[in-house]
Formats: sequence, C-alpha cells, structure tokens
Amino acid sequence: MYKIDFFSPGVLMKIQTLDFIAELEKREKQVTSYLCSREFESWFHPEHLKEAIYSYVNRAGKRLRPAVLLISCGAVGGREEDAIPAAAAVEMFHTWTLVHDDLIDNDDKRRGGHTVHAQASLIAKQELQYTDSQAKDYGRDIAILAGDVQQGWAVSLLCDCSLKRNVKPEITLTLIKMLESYVLTTLVSGETLDIQFAKKRIESFEPEQILDMLWRKTGVLYEYSAKAGAMIGLSTTGAQDKRIKALSSFTSKCGTAFQLQDDILGIVGNEKQLGKPIGSDIREGKRTTIIYYAFKKASPQQKTRLENILGKPDATNEEIEEVTQLLEQLGGISETKRLAEKIIQEACLELDVLTDSPYKKLLLAWADFMISRKF
Amino acid sequence: MYKIDFFSPGVLMKIQTLDFIAELEKREKQVTSYLCSREFESWFHPEHLKEAIYSYVNRAGKRLRPAVLLISCGAVGGREEDAIPAAAAVEMFHTWTLVHDDLIDNDDKRRGGHTVHAQASLIAKQELQYTDSQAKDYGRDIAILAGDVQQGWAVSLLCDCSLKRNVKPEITLTLIKMLESYVLTTLVSGETLDIQFAKKRIESFEPEQILDMLWRKTGVLYEYSAKAGAMIGLSTTGAQDKRIKALSSFTSKCGTAFQLQDDILGIVGNEKQLGKPIGSDIREGKRTTIIYYAFKKASPQQKTRLENILGKPDATNEEIEEVTQLLEQLGGISETKRLAEKIIQEACLELDVLTDSPYKKLLLAWADFMISRKF
Repeated sequence: MYKIDFFSPGVLMKIQTLDFIAELEKREKQVTSYLCSREFESWFHPEHLKEAIYSYVNRAGKRLRPAVLLISCGAVGGREEDAIPAAAAVEMFHTWTLVHDDLIDNDDKRRGGHTVHAQASLIAKQELQYTDSQAKDYGRDIAILAGDVQQGWAVSLLCDCSLKRNVKPEITLTLIKMLESYVLTTLVSGETLDIQFAKKRIESFEPEQILDMLWRKTGVLYEYSAKAGAMIGLSTTGAQDKRIKALSSFTSKCGTAFQLQDDILGIVGNEKQLGKPIGSDIREGKRTTIIYYAFKKASPQQKTRLENILGKPDATNEEIEEVTQLLEQLGGISETKRLAEKIIQEACLELDVLTDSPYKKLLLAWADFMISRKF
Repeated sequence: MYKIDFFSPGVLMKIQTLDFIAELEKREKQVTSYLCSREFESWFHPEHLKEAIYSYVNRAGKRLRPAVLLISCGAVGGREEDAIPAAAAVEMFHTWTLVHDDLIDNDDKRRGGHTVHAQASLIAKQELQYTDSQAKDYGRDIAILAGDVQQGWAVSLLCDCSLKRNVKPEITLTLIKMLESYVLTTLVSGETLDIQFAKKRIESFEPEQILDMLWRKTGVLYEYSAKAGAMIGLSTTGAQDKRIKALSSFTSKCGTAFQLQDDILGIVGNEKQLGKPIGSDIREGKRTTIIYYAFKKASPQQKTRLENILGKPDATNEEIEEVTQLLEQLGGISETKRLAEKIIQEACLELDVLTDSPYKKLLLAWADFMISRKF
C-alpha cells in the first residue's frame, strides 16, 4: 500500500528533503511573482495603504494554499498554468484574513516583522508625529482598509482566470460565489467563535466544538483551494466528480490538522522560526484542544493555576513558562499531536481514488508537511 | 429645453412629490426584500454576527445607489428585473463601507440607531458581562468581521445576475472585476485620504483636492451603479457605448454633489431627520469645502478659533455652535451649496444623449434629490 510506504520515516524524509521543498518553492515563486506584477502595483495608493497591502506578500511565507490548488489542478490532469490567478487569489484571500485577525488578536508580530496595524501605528508616530492614541487608531484604520482591499484583490484575481486565461466564465463565477458566500461566511463564523470561546470556561468545551471552530477558521479555505484547482483542471462546475470530492475532503481535513499544529507551535514553537512571539495564545486565553486535554488530567490546584493564567493579558514570562510546562506534562501537547496525525492519516485515505502519479506523491508529502512543519 | 424646465421650481416640486418618491420607494422595497430573503438568512452565524450584518439593512435608508442602477437599466431599454441582484449588490457594497467607516470614525449613531460596533459593544457588556475595554474590542471585532462578510455578500449577489438571472457571464465577470479592483481601490484611497487630511493644516488644501477625495469616497460607487445598470440593460461589456458613458458620468458627478450635501447636513442638518448627531464632523476635524471657503474669508482671530476647535474630540456644545455659526456667516455653507448645484447642473447636461422618457425624468429628479435631501 502506497500510504503505508509513505508513512514509513525513510520514504517520508526522502520525499520531503529531495523533491517536496523544491516543488513548494517553485510554486511559491510563481504565485508571489504573479502578485507582484506591475499591473497590480499601480492600483494601490496612497503610500501607507500600499505598503500595508504588500506587507505580508513581500515576506517569506509557506504559500500552502496556492501550492495545493496548483497540485490539485495537476493531479486531475489539468494545466497548472491556467490556475495561477486562482492560486494567487487564495493566497490573497488568506492574507486579508491574517491582516484583520492580527488586529482582532492585538498581535504585534507576523512572519518575522510587525503586523500591518502595528507597522502603520509606528509610521504614524515617526512620520506624522501622531500621539499614541491617534497612532493606535491610525494603525487600526490602515489595517481595516488594507484587508478590505486585499479581499477585493483576491476576487479580481479569480476574475482573471476567465478574463486573462482560459477558464470558462461559468466556472469562474461558481468559484467566486463559493469563495464569497460559503467559504467567507464559514471562515468568519470560525473567527467569531474563536473570539467568543476565549471568554468561556474551559470546562464548557468538548473537543468537537474546538475542531469545528478550527475547521471553520482554516479547513474550509484549504477545502476550497483543492476544489478550485480540481474544477479548473477538469474544466467543470460539477462538484460531484469523485476526484474533486476526494481532493476537497483531503485538504479540508489537512487544514484542521494544520491548525492543531499551529496551536502546538503557539505553545512550544521556536519564536525565531515562527516569526511571532510564543505566549500570546496563552495571554489571549485561546481555547485549544491542548488546553482541553491538559485540563482533563489536571488536579484541582493545577486547574486553578491554568484558569488564572490563561487569558491574563499581562501574564509574566514566568507564568507563561509555568503554563507551558503544565500543558506539556499533562499531555495536552502530545494528545493534540496524536489527534493531528490521526486526522492526516484519514485525509490521506481520501486520495485512494486518484491514480498513482508524481502529483499524488506531492499531495501526500504536502499532508505530512502540514503537521511536521516547525514554522 | 427640458433641463431648464426641470430646474424651474414648480416642475421640480411636482415631479418630486408626485412621482419620484413613490418610484424610489418601490425600488427600495424590491431591493430590501431581495436582501432579506430566506436563502441569505441561513448563511450567517453566530447570532451577534448575524445581527450586525443585517443591522443597517433593516433600518430605513435612501437606497439611492440601487435606485439609480435600476433606473439606468430601464433608461437604456433594459428589464429592471434582470438587474435586481446587481442593485442589491451595490447597496450591500455601500453597507460594508458604512460599517467599517463608522468604526474608523468612532461614530456611535447611524440611521437612527447605534452603529454596528457600538451595538456589539453594548451587547457584550449587557449579555456577556465584559469589561468596558473588552466590550470595546468585541464591538470593533464584530464590526470588522460583519463588514468583511458584507463585502463578500455583495460579490455573491453580483454572481447571481448570471447564476440566477439572465445576464451573460462575461458581463457579470466584468462587473465583479470592476467593483473589486477599480471601485474598491478608489473608494478606499478616498477613505484613507479623508483620514490623513483630518490631521493636516486647513490652509494646505485646495478645493480640488477635497473634491477628488469626495469623488473617490462617494462618486466612484455612484458612477459604477449607473454603469452596471446600463451594461446589464444593453447586455454588453463594452463601456464605450455613449449612453453608458453619459449615465456613468452623470452619476459620478451627482455622487460628488451628494457628498457636498452630506457635509452641509453634517454641520447644519437636523439630528432627528439625519439619524446621527451633528457636530461629529467638527470634532473629527473633517476637511470639507465648507471649511475651505469659510477659512478663506476668516479674520486672523476667526482662523485661530476655527483651528482650535476643528478636530478637538472633546469640543463642548457651545464650541460646536460657535464654529457652526462661523461656517455659516463666512459663507462656507452657501458656497458649498452653490458648488453642489453647479455640479448637478453639469451632471444633468450629460443626459442630453438620452431620448426623453419617464426614465430620463426620474434620473433628473434623482439628481435634484441628491442635493435637496434633508436626510
């Protein structure tokens, strides 16, 4: 069985180190260079807004969504070239959600630099001599507007599938409608639940609720990425094709597992590799399966400590360290890791309907990368 | 000459009171009922987000953009029925910009009720027992996410022109691309300039810069509304048709004049009729032609008073009253009114290329309403 071979460590390492990273980088370059083309650059002004719009595009990123869109297109026999505007679109769609989420989470760092709102605040203080409170508002305003423009840019990129490439207009329209209704409303409902959950008692959650929230926040856009790639590859609006269904279901599951790994890295990751500070998830009181599993095994005293520190915006570094150790000792990290691996294995089973090909190998390596990544 | 007849008070009053308001209300009902259909209602959750998304839709509004879209469709011989999803789309597109702008401007009232962020903050305090600062963040977050979803909803509504009505997919794609690139980037650049201008010295402005900013903030979406209606009515993507050009240019100018009237009402309007407090434009330090014209005629002492109070967030009611009187006495209001009238007259000349018809009459009445409205 191909999947079992794949999951034996030797094969995995070989695929990952030799081919996969190069394949990922190749697509990353295609998408970034498409986004940075002259045509778009002239669209955005005034200057501070333009900087904000390009800020994350110009920083190193994994570009996992456009990669899986292009690979899915190839996996069903399509020309990846036709799908490049759609790949750029999902990356840009993801980007605006980052810009708005960073503001909502009051996060200062992303991809090794300031978040959009933090950067614009700094500029307002340094260039415009705004007061602290004026600068904070200015940062908020620029981040809101930059994200708004990026959402529109994502949709415009999808339009180009037909206006500039060979995708049938009906397919593009179906993709736009799906992105701007089903995907968007699901994603935003996930973000809203995440905000609401952070203030609710830990004991009031079941892991299913957390997984549903994670799927909404992340899984749904991954699901869409594969579906879009496969629909373009097969030149059809019919989402009933079994390959389209399999690829969507595969990436949907991988997306949830990706978010579990994100939660793990948010607690025990390396700050430099991640490009953002560790501890902010604890200070925000983010409700994760890590906390659920740890809490289940915690003594009454440990529960009190966890409850007191989780969601405490001014928690000290010592308190962060204490909670991190508790979450590790109580099995929160390892249980979540196990859950992520289980979901990835289930996801890979979906790919049985595809015939073996280099594309299928890439998809399996991509799935593994979703939970083995350290950044 | 029709236009001269039209601008004589008697004719104007007759058209306005007898037909125009009824015609406006008829279209307002069509658009609102389309937006409130069951299909969409199931899209949005959780509850606070859903309330935020529908908040302004459920309040009385003028719906001038969808009205001019439908009338433009009819004016070129098209079936208004085909354009209803597009009309609903421009209203929803306008709505998300209101939700985000209200947050950016820190405004508390809109259309006689709380703004989206103010309402969500209140709910967080009353239902969820959040602290003041937590509730403020929650209000901000819900307003950001609601606006994001509304932008997507607007695009989905456009998709329905082809997916549910008879508009050719190429036309719909062209309209989506135009809305999400040209219109959106122009509109957001106008909003950004508005934010930046408020902190700059009054004497550093020329009215042309203010008019350009107003056109960006408002004119461009009006221009788009007429263009979309006419393109659907003529079933063409070719924006070179002289009727399409005339209608776009007409509404583009009317949009700028509308914003001048908005600035006037923001100073001397009736709070009850407007549904929002007077004085906030002064406290924000909004840069308008009213201020430009008044400043030009002000004595050094008057200039100092204006500079001290404009943009003072905690200006007293007496100070607001003092500035209001200065702006009136120094001709700021009357000069701006004159400018708005001049722009509307120029706009109406554009309609010469259309043959006379009830639709043309409606457009002329619509143009007059843009600057005669009291709300």
